[in-house]
Amino acid sequence: MYYETACQMKKMLGQLDKWLATVTEHAQQKSIDPTVFVGLRLAPDQFPFARQVQAACDTAKLMTARLTGKDAPSHADGEQTLDELRARVQSVVAYLDGFTARDFEASATRVVTQPRWEGKVMSGADYFMEHAVPNFFFHLTHAYAILRHNGVALGKRDYLGALTLRAP
Amino acid sequence: MYYETACQMKKMLGQLDKWLATVTEHAQQKSIDPTVFVGLRLAPDQFPFARQVQAACDTAKLMTARLTGKDAPSHADGEQTLDELRARVQSVVAYLDGFTARDFEASATRVVTQPRWEGKVMSGADYFMEHAVPNFFFHLTHAYAILRHNGVALGKRDYLGALTLRAP
Repeated sequence: MYYETACQMKKMLGQLDKWLATVTEHAQQKSIDPTVFVGLRLAPDQFPFARQVQAACDTAKLMTARLTGKDAPSHADGEQTLDELRARVQSVVAYLDGFTARDFEASATRVVTQPRWEGKVMSGADYFMEHAVPNFFFHLTHAYAILRHNGVALGKRDYLGALTLRAP
Repeated sequence: MYYETACQMKKMLGQLDKWLATVTEHAQQKSIDPTVFVGLRLAPDQFPFARQVQAACDTAKLMTARLTGKDAPSHADGEQTLDELRARVQSVVAYLDGFTARDFEASATRVVTQPRWEGKVMSGADYFMEHAVPNFFFHLTHAYAILRHNGVALGKRDYLGALTLRAP
């Protein structure tokens, strides 16, 4: 299910890209400087919108790289505009597009670490479930909530995207 | 991975229960009526805090019931206080505690539907990935964000809970 989850993250980053298009239109219609949205936050000690977008992108990108043993493309976190954030999102979607289910075959038993863990490690399975998935949705949902809090017209369908519904 | 995800949701509902304890203390220290928090929301057309908590609970509960073919306990959505919300969360944690990995063996191919889908259905696998998991984190993160936006001292560790870190 690692591959399927990476595909779901790719789908939801595609939704995030659409939210960014919606904010851009919203700013135009209301004559708001669109770069204002880049710096909005829900609490003074929480990440601003741009950093929430970057963190959602990084979580999906780094999870995929760590669980497959591949290198991740580097991103400089210098985005200052909504268009630059869209390019960041689209770049990660393109990166995720390059993987197949086979790439994730050894994911559960890979050893994952990061500087913040001070030498400790997690198994790929634990890292995926306890860290990557909750963090991805945390930052994605904060990006959504910042926009909703600031009057951008988004709804649950914009969050979930199209569902694979079929006749019974 | 359905069972492991239900376990992760149970862990995160346990974190939500701790946030509710933190809000209760916060309200006492600041001499705020604790029931004020129950009605807070980030946008006038978003769910208030209580409904976000209820929705996170319901998503975990109904996902587990639908993927295992078991009945879910019914909850009346009448919670008016933080203590009543804690009882709701704890009741769902206790429900999830009653499942084992075997219960989820046929989950991927179960047929899932709900009134909102107007007669359409989803496979258990699609429902899990496209609907249940994103919705659970959506409502859980909104509950967290409402509290952070209103000055409650929570951080990422309170969101993620303890990680299964080990020596390399």
